[in-house]
Amino acid sequence: MAELTGNLLVAQSGGPTCAINASIAGVITEAGKHECIEEIYGGLNGILGILNEEIIDINDEKAKSIEGLRYTPAAALGTCRYKINFQKKPEQAARDMDRLFEVFAAHNIRYFFYAGGNDSQDTSHKIHEEALKRGYEMRVIGVPKTIDNDLPHTDNCPGYGSAIKYNATTVMEVGFDVASMATDDGSCCIIEVMGRSAGWIAAGTVLAKRGNPANPPHIILLPEIAFDEEKFLAKVRETIEAYRYCIVVVGEGLKDKSGKEVGADHTKLDAFGHPVLAGAAEELKEIVQGKMNLKTRTVLLGYAQRAASHFSSLTDTNNGFACGEAAVRAAVAGQSGYMVKIVRTTLADGVRWSTDLQPLGDIANVEHFLPNDWISEDGLMVNEKFVEYATPLVEGEVKVPTEGGLPKYVVLEKNKIEKKLAPRA
Amino acid sequence: MAELTGNLLVAQSGGPTCAINASIAGVITEAGKHECIEEIYGGLNGILGILNEEIIDINDEKAKSIEGLRYTPAAALGTCRYKINFQKKPEQAARDMDRLFEVFAAHNIRYFFYAGGNDSQDTSHKIHEEALKRGYEMRVIGVPKTIDNDLPHTDNCPGYGSAIKYNATTVMEVGFDVASMATDDGSCCIIEVMGRSAGWIAAGTVLAKRGNPANPPHIILLPEIAFDEEKFLAKVRETIEAYRYCIVVVGEGLKDKSGKEVGADHTKLDAFGHPVLAGAAEELKEIVQGKMNLKTRTVLLGYAQRAASHFSSLTDTNNGFACGEAAVRAAVAGQSGYMVKIVRTTLADGVRWSTDLQPLGDIANVEHFLPNDWISEDGLMVNEKFVEYATPLVEGEVKVPTEGGLPKYVVLEKNKIEKKLAPRA
Repeated sequence: MAELTGNLLVAQSGGPTCAINASIAGVITEAGKHECIEEIYGGLNGILGILNEEIIDINDEKAKSIEGLRYTPAAALGTCRYKINFQKKPEQAARDMDRLFEVFAAHNIRYFFYAGGNDSQDTSHKIHEEALKRGYEMRVIGVPKTIDNDLPHTDNCPGYGSAIKYNATTVMEVGFDVASMATDDGSCCIIEVMGRSAGWIAAGTVLAKRGNPANPPHIILLPEIAFDEEKFLAKVRETIEAYRYCIVVVGEGLKDKSGKEVGADHTKLDAFGHPVLAGAAEELKEIVQGKMNLKTRTVLLGYAQRAASHFSSLTDTNNGFACGEAAVRAAVAGQSGYMVKIVRTTLADGVRWSTDLQPLGDIANVEHFLPNDWISEDGLMVNEKFVEYATPLVEGEVKVPTEGGLPKYVVLEKNKIEKKLAPRA
Repeated sequence: MAELTGNLLVAQSGGPTCAINASIAGVITEAGKHECIEEIYGGLNGILGILNEEIIDINDEKAKSIEGLRYTPAAALGTCRYKINFQKKPEQAARDMDRLFEVFAAHNIRYFFYAGGNDSQDTSHKIHEEALKRGYEMRVIGVPKTIDNDLPHTDNCPGYGSAIKYNATTVMEVGFDVASMATDDGSCCIIEVMGRSAGWIAAGTVLAKRGNPANPPHIILLPEIAFDEEKFLAKVRETIEAYRYCIVVVGEGLKDKSGKEVGADHTKLDAFGHPVLAGAAEELKEIVQGKMNLKTRTVLLGYAQRAASHFSSLTDTNNGFACGEAAVRAAVAGQSGYMVKIVRTTLADGVRWSTDLQPLGDIANVEHFLPNDWISEDGLMVNEKFVEYATPLVEGEVKVPTEGGLPKYVVLEKNKIEKKLAPRA
């Protein structure tokens, strides 16, 4: 494959994680090693910023800021949930695609890297296909990212390991707290975590058990398993009898037998038309307090769980960085239309991580669910197979610098390059 | 004062914190240095366990477990909310007091240390007075503890510094996340923290600002200031216009002009007759979404904020340890009927911490509120005076050992000593 000389554009999309900035740092660091890559640009707020020609010059950033991206939460370039939707809005999508390629051409973008989840990989796929169709020579590689861990083909998704490390730690700590308070009457705490349709995040809190059934979480309610109130209450009762307290973890997307989200507010939809979920823990609390007269409190970790870089997983952020590096290496070697995936090799002395490529067409809009045989028979816990899978993902602590006792994260300068086009219509 | 030889009993009470175990470690460590203290006992679940003669032998614990208490969250000896209530239940209270002194005498308890908040200091005070009345020679010292930071006379309460370090870090991290997601339409996140009547915990999140008005939190709603919906919405609007996102911190005890808690469920009361609070953030979310059509999410940190030892404050846990040591030193020197308090001395090169004693009668049932002149004029933020006060409290990180990427906390063996009395009637 002939060497392709030109500029690089990297952008981020979808919900932020603790590792998506590490991936951007990987892209930038690797890009600096290749002479065929001339300028390194960042698109602000994903596709949305690129459509508006909002592009920053990453070579204007301090080297220590790029290094700091390895431990800085959120999306340093900004992110968006904007989708180029050929099915629902074909005319807008066609206009968007025209505009994107105008921007690419105006700034001689020949390398495009997009870090994100399912929807973002779909966007990368469409851009790759469009480049081929238009005969515009550009190499497009998707970089995986999502705390949901629901991208197919990759062993795991950067951001997931950090999210479950923090969530499992929280479950452990809340467990210590509630156990020490559970005197005569027992006490229950319900911790709601993210996960709209796949239970990976909720499942990850099993690590707090360290293999001991007495340890929390005592119940994990997964979106994959229809909520059965009687079975749930029976398990809470059994747990209280055995340990005098009960810690329940619930994935926000928990559904009842009819498929309706438990505690969802169906009157409000997000930009993708999904119902806004924020009430599973509160609804379960009402059930436990009402039916068992058991003191029950809730914890709703919300955005905190995907941004808790003060205790992120070194394995996870290293994998995120490696995905960024691999994306650039693949593109420079002539590849396009792939997503980088993480590959696990289990050796006698531990796990080795590497990367490989998967065609974007295999990824886009495919959701990877928790395997059924990783869920316990009663549907209220995950089993040893899951524990074996998840354990290596939380290993290692990221050293985050502090200032006055609080983390010192990086904020990029974001110096915009000169616009060359008329404003977007 | 003549030397008093006998056994020591230490117990914990009220809501756990990240530093209450450090105080117990301080008591135990210091007690080991004094020959007049023969056995070191721990009362399980505070007064409640002592009434039931549930006492453990602390000398049976491993030395490294005692050391590990310095970074282990929750109450390692167990805790309770049980109150000896002479006003509401005089007969029960009299029976309880008789029983307590039977237990003290049966086990030759001559040193009694009780770590807790307002209610617990009241209990210590009553026990001290009762000992004098009965002519039972015993030295009683209260050890301060509460994330609420509402004990009078002490500079701060162990547990508070760690809680606000974690909460401020969470506000900072969630702020990074929401800022990076706030593309065109802006976004709001409401983070609910503890604090029933005093706003110390909510106020502490101001440290995430690092003095920059653009940084979150943009609004802090304190229980001390009556909620004014119009003023609040105007400030949210102003913040969104300036920064495109808005992070609001709300203390759970926020009240409206009539004194009714915002989002409280008045149909449920806890053991002390206070309404169960868990809905301020959800109620504010409804207001913001309803009146401004602004995407709004909530975070409810709940128990996590008082148990997050994985990122606790070294200053705070060191102060907790020092309070435990000081309690024993005071008792051995002949003092009784005091609470240890923390004293701050501000020198040119930073703050020095020391301890002193305050009569328990000055502490019990007195709540220390946020000074009015530490609150900004609009009532929606705290000012530089508070920042100056709080900054030193979060300094320093506690080194928590990990195992497989998760914190490795200590669980005591809790070997019970032989009971000498008939079961409690």
